[in-house]
Amino acid sequence: MPLHGQNIIGKSTCGKGSDTFRAVDPSTSQALETDFHNATQAEKDQVLALADQAFANRPKDPARTVELLNRCADEIEEVGDELIERCTAETALPAPRLQGERARTCNQLRLFARLVEEGSWIDARIDTAIPDRTPLPKPDMRRMLTPIGPVLVFGASNFPLAFSVAGGDTASAFAAGCPVIVKARPAHPGTSELVGQAVQKAATAAGMPEGWFAMLHGPGRTTGTYLAKHPVVKAVGFTGSLSGGRALFDLATSRPDPIPVYAEMGSINPVFLMPEALAERAEQIADGFYQSVTLGVGQFCTNPGLVVAIDNEHLEKFVAVLCQHVKQMVPATMLLATILDSYEQGVQSLSKAGGVEVAAQARQAPDRDKTQCAAAVFVTDAEKLLDDRSLSHEVFGPSTLIVRCRNTNQMLEVARHLEGQLTATVHATQDELDRCGELLATLETKAGRLLFGGFPTGLEVCASTHHGGPYPATTDGRSTSVGTGAIERFTRAVCYQDFPQNLLPPQLRDDNPTGIWRLVDGQRTK
Amino acid sequence: MPLHGQNIIGKSTCGKGSDTFRAVDPSTSQALETDFHNATQAEKDQVLALADQAFANRPKDPARTVELLNRCADEIEEVGDELIERCTAETALPAPRLQGERARTCNQLRLFARLVEEGSWIDARIDTAIPDRTPLPKPDMRRMLTPIGPVLVFGASNFPLAFSVAGGDTASAFAAGCPVIVKARPAHPGTSELVGQAVQKAATAAGMPEGWFAMLHGPGRTTGTYLAKHPVVKAVGFTGSLSGGRALFDLATSRPDPIPVYAEMGSINPVFLMPEALAERAEQIADGFYQSVTLGVGQFCTNPGLVVAIDNEHLEKFVAVLCQHVKQMVPATMLLATILDSYEQGVQSLSKAGGVEVAAQARQAPDRDKTQCAAAVFVTDAEKLLDDRSLSHEVFGPSTLIVRCRNTNQMLEVARHLEGQLTATVHATQDELDRCGELLATLETKAGRLLFGGFPTGLEVCASTHHGGPYPATTDGRSTSVGTGAIERFTRAVCYQDFPQNLLPPQLRDDNPTGIWRLVDGQRTK
Repeated sequence: MPLHGQNIIGKSTCGKGSDTFRAVDPSTSQALETDFHNATQAEKDQVLALADQAFANRPKDPARTVELLNRCADEIEEVGDELIERCTAETALPAPRLQGERARTCNQLRLFARLVEEGSWIDARIDTAIPDRTPLPKPDMRRMLTPIGPVLVFGASNFPLAFSVAGGDTASAFAAGCPVIVKARPAHPGTSELVGQAVQKAATAAGMPEGWFAMLHGPGRTTGTYLAKHPVVKAVGFTGSLSGGRALFDLATSRPDPIPVYAEMGSINPVFLMPEALAERAEQIADGFYQSVTLGVGQFCTNPGLVVAIDNEHLEKFVAVLCQHVKQMVPATMLLATILDSYEQGVQSLSKAGGVEVAAQARQAPDRDKTQCAAAVFVTDAEKLLDDRSLSHEVFGPSTLIVRCRNTNQMLEVARHLEGQLTATVHATQDELDRCGELLATLETKAGRLLFGGFPTGLEVCASTHHGGPYPATTDGRSTSVGTGAIERFTRAVCYQDFPQNLLPPQLRDDNPTGIWRLVDGQRTK
Repeated sequence: MPLHGQNIIGKSTCGKGSDTFRAVDPSTSQALETDFHNATQAEKDQVLALADQAFANRPKDPARTVELLNRCADEIEEVGDELIERCTAETALPAPRLQGERARTCNQLRLFARLVEEGSWIDARIDTAIPDRTPLPKPDMRRMLTPIGPVLVFGASNFPLAFSVAGGDTASAFAAGCPVIVKARPAHPGTSELVGQAVQKAATAAGMPEGWFAMLHGPGRTTGTYLAKHPVVKAVGFTGSLSGGRALFDLATSRPDPIPVYAEMGSINPVFLMPEALAERAEQIADGFYQSVTLGVGQFCTNPGLVVAIDNEHLEKFVAVLCQHVKQMVPATMLLATILDSYEQGVQSLSKAGGVEVAAQARQAPDRDKTQCAAAVFVTDAEKLLDDRSLSHEVFGPSTLIVRCRNTNQMLEVARHLEGQLTATVHATQDELDRCGELLATLETKAGRLLFGGFPTGLEVCASTHHGGPYPATTDGRSTSVGTGAIERFTRAVCYQDFPQNLLPPQLRDDNPTGIWRLVDGQRTK
């Protein structure tokens, strides 16, 4: 079926605007078929009014949310090969990667469905009345999490499925009981439309109120800004650049009524290689590191952009093996010409920085018409890194900076110098562990996920996932964008005092009809 | 023992500055003894450096936190009558009220001690590894909440004990494992010093790192601003005015690294009186309402400043009874001359607003030298309220505005018009309940605590408490400032991937040595 190129507004599609654009295949720099219509002012306002109304009429039975989430997964699978084909054309990501990402997208929708079905996530707490308490009677108090209201989601370009139209933010907002307005990434409008249609079908089939889901095309700086400032929108989810995330945060916090912005903006994901581990396994670690830093052409927010180790022959060995791999790497197509531009600027800037050596660049020249980049390895000394904050800035792509330290104290000093990170990794031998306490304690204050061994790319989606970290990794380091914990972002607590049983939400009634875990007078019971 | 008038910096006291001030007894407008030294730049910087260092050396054993919290309560009780006497002199709040508030303060410190002792609040989640999973092995992932870092607390003037130096914010920040810097309210510096000394002793006795607690004197606009902007400070707790809270929020969110600000700023706490309830019990409700609106000279953030009801003879009866009480009320001393000024401005502004009648004012003239105010009752029509947003602004003190509606639809319209509130109350008969669904659903989106019957003042402190609400009630409606849920404000999650058992926090180890409730592979176990 040909793409319609329109905005999705509840059960309808609409493309009244004359402002259109086309997707570009980054591997050819050629425009792809279908004109996509940027949303008009009237279309934006219609979406906002519908979301407001939909939230007012929100279904109170969690079973509807469960059905919505499961049907979203089913409908996305139903799109079949067409989705993978269009997405490959728009992103140059290979089909197997996108098949895996589609599986992750559907898995996380179903994971949230199970979470809502089980029901205990609402953190129900009950303190029963003591009418004859002195000097004052104790009232009956019952509290649970409730949905925050309509959520605005900005999809990520590097996860066109798992962090876009029906990605993590949409799944967790739906799970929390919120309507969702997606501002589609202009980088993959066809993929967005196909997934948006799937969600549209799912919302209709699950009987959600009209306007529970909408997807609009339009530039971030105008359409995105307008939506984020609008009083109907109660929270924002965003994955993208530091400048984009910060701009959104600034405008949302300067609203007359500020709202939370969960912007996940990136990170250099430092990897600390302790000397004994490096002495034992320099080559093996280099092989694994190379896989991680070049995975998905380095276009992951968990891409390891910094290596910290003591300057000795084992580090030399690590660098030599890594450089050998990198030199032989075939140039690969990035997602977008603008991402390639940023990458090249970052690489240029490191190349020109005093005290930074270019240790390796891919030998084969990249083809600009194919939006190709060349992987790169840089080396510097700890003093230089500590002296020049710009060396710690993220270069989004397959580039990494190796920092030579004089000793473990200096490795600790580098750790202390770091800004907020999504992840931090330590490789150490069993014997070295006892000496890593201070380093680990420091990294714990800097990063949301600490890895012992392994590499930060390839994030597991589960209850224990924490994908977040102090600023500038995110604008809200308390919160995660991946895993079931993400549901809490789109909630607020409400306390019901002295409510009659029949007016309480079922989750808070004495007989616990939903069978969830609750804290009742200080005891956890079911 | 005479007051020292100095700043509390870890185990020391320091008052090197020549900029001093005195407390004023609002009931006489006379200055009280002791010059208090505003913190110098060097003192502020010393406090920040110590807090940073203290957090880096934070004790990992929760037993230390438990001891700190319990000892704080013990030491505050140990101060004895001197605390109540000084506090009465500084605030004009009567001794029985302050004795009750001291009990609440100590109870909430001990409540948090029990929470930390029990330990499950850290929300531990464990997903164990599946090394042979295909296509990729599943790593071992474990997650828990950890302290966010040094917290800056601004005490409230209306709760000189329960929401000041060792109040709710300090208790919850300590409980979360964070060092605390208190910017003392200039309104009650002697009370602050006495409580600050108690906390200082408790911190020393509990063996906390030097600088775990500090208390500085100084103006909010300079000292407070400097501290809130400083990179060492990772979160802010504030209770006070909308303008003060918003200013803090704006500067904290515009930091290079934005931090969370939990400002609880006030509310008009609407009370909806449904017609049958009013027909049955107009006089009884008016009696209770009068007690609530004048409690503590109306100086509660939960003070009911708005009544919404249908215009009929039963409302007339309610207004008549309320006005009779108010007219006979003896003028009472407010906390501060500036609070009295604001109150008088608010009352003036309502008196002059078109379409608003002054239904009653206390007959006896207040004495300005005694910082006295006169309670007031205003009446207006729903149309007028809907038309003039300024009528919904908080007037902090014993004043309330009664809104006459034509019918229940108009009552609903008023509910929809409201801004964010800490509380909303509905009085209805059993028969009326079924017809209140839409009203309750609307109020649920507006307020953090919904009361069925009763009055919003007199908040129960327990696990189910939610004292928070959408802006402008607070700057973060997701969160509560009262009750054990407040501990979450000062935390962030950290995930440990593939960590060896001995490097994991005890709460996340396989054998669960702390015996807490955890979510292990999707099952809640202990």
